[in-house]
Amino acid sequence: MTQLQKHYTRRYRLTAAQCNAQRELAPAMLVQHIIEVATEHADALGVGFKNLAANGTLWVLSRCAFEVRRFPRLLEEYSLTTWVEGYNRHFSERNFEIRGEGGEVIGFARTIWVSIDMATRRPANLSGFDFLQEVVSDKECPIARQGKLRPIEPPQMCHPYRFQVSDIDVNRHVNSSRYVELIINQMDLDTYDRFFVSRFEIEYRHEAHYGDEVEVCSAFSAEGDALLTSINLDGQTVCLARSVTSPRE
Amino acid sequence: MTQLQKHYTRRYRLTAAQCNAQRELAPAMLVQHIIEVATEHADALGVGFKNLAANGTLWVLSRCAFEVRRFPRLLEEYSLTTWVEGYNRHFSERNFEIRGEGGEVIGFARTIWVSIDMATRRPANLSGFDFLQEVVSDKECPIARQGKLRPIEPPQMCHPYRFQVSDIDVNRHVNSSRYVELIINQMDLDTYDRFFVSRFEIEYRHEAHYGDEVEVCSAFSAEGDALLTSINLDGQTVCLARSVTSPRE
Repeated sequence: MTQLQKHYTRRYRLTAAQCNAQRELAPAMLVQHIIEVATEHADALGVGFKNLAANGTLWVLSRCAFEVRRFPRLLEEYSLTTWVEGYNRHFSERNFEIRGEGGEVIGFARTIWVSIDMATRRPANLSGFDFLQEVVSDKECPIARQGKLRPIEPPQMCHPYRFQVSDIDVNRHVNSSRYVELIINQMDLDTYDRFFVSRFEIEYRHEAHYGDEVEVCSAFSAEGDALLTSINLDGQTVCLARSVTSPRE
Repeated sequence: MTQLQKHYTRRYRLTAAQCNAQRELAPAMLVQHIIEVATEHADALGVGFKNLAANGTLWVLSRCAFEVRRFPRLLEEYSLTTWVEGYNRHFSERNFEIRGEGGEVIGFARTIWVSIDMATRRPANLSGFDFLQEVVSDKECPIARQGKLRPIEPPQMCHPYRFQVSDIDVNRHVNSSRYVELIINQMDLDTYDRFFVSRFEIEYRHEAHYGDEVEVCSAFSAEGDALLTSINLDGQTVCLARSVTSPRE
């Protein structure tokens, strides 16, 4: 067996075509990159999309939390480095370090992945991949673990949305990063000109599909420090999120 | 002055996180790549985002037509090569060749770019960049030029859409590739499982902004060979498109 790489880094450059209205990497695009880099590292370790598919299983992102001092900016070279913090037969904890131009550390992310059976959509047993214990790294990820997210009662604003062709991913579910866009869209463009999302947490609970009509509901936390969002489908919670914004300098 | 490269190529690999429900590159993502690769080539030629911004102008994609035998597939390595077909002080014609794994040619695209003044949003005079004549290439682009697109009367289906934070680009307008998604979304997921978009044309007429509420209206052409779409804002045409689908093998 070839040497297993504990750390995997992918470099990016934020082109004008990719950045958002604030000329930065959008939060949804960061989550998309997190999924991409996780997938590539898993591929390199022999536990990627192809390997799991051969087994009738697939990785599903269950939780993601990121914290940034700032987002990568227009034309900036940046990178994501990922490593496995913990692993057992039910889930894997994978962290990320985000660096900007010149190697400046600008943020971190924590994710939890579960493996599910493609046919039954139930958790799969990953004990066949025990060699992954070897790649667990003790690299530090200095952001808080994800807190418990609860449904919002009562919501302060709700928007309906029906999932379209362009929202559907390789597994025929709604794309994980598309939920992030719907959550970000709960606040105005003007808000993001004055504030940036300094910490974001999302918990994926149920899969939504093409044509599903959801309600995106939000409320400010009792402490007023965060926007809590719940995406609901027929009384079921599809996902829950918590966004903390900080003023721009 | 350094040697100006007539042809510019960028390589991609379609990751699971990036592909659509048909496990292919989505049409909107292809348009996104086209803009990205055009921008990078313009940067390399010294007429990119930064150079034009210093001049108070920017490039705007006016028309785009692509034709593909198939789209790049999940995990496939593919590339886009671009070159300038023609250039004058008002607009530039830039073409693209799309190759799949092993160099197989799978499609072409034609684009027309205009330069506008950032402040007035009126066409800018690009005569200062006459050295671009040197990079005009006679490489062949064997797909038809874009036909004239007309508003649809009467539409067979209309869907309202209000532009959100996640739809806005670096220039504070709606992202060019987002319109493509809205157009693609006029047909069902099931349709794209049986057919693929073998030719697509879009003409951008007016800029839409955050909060604008548009109507996306479509009708099949009289010949029944294409879906014509018009995105309208308060009686004004934002963009027009024509999508031809072909059965999958």
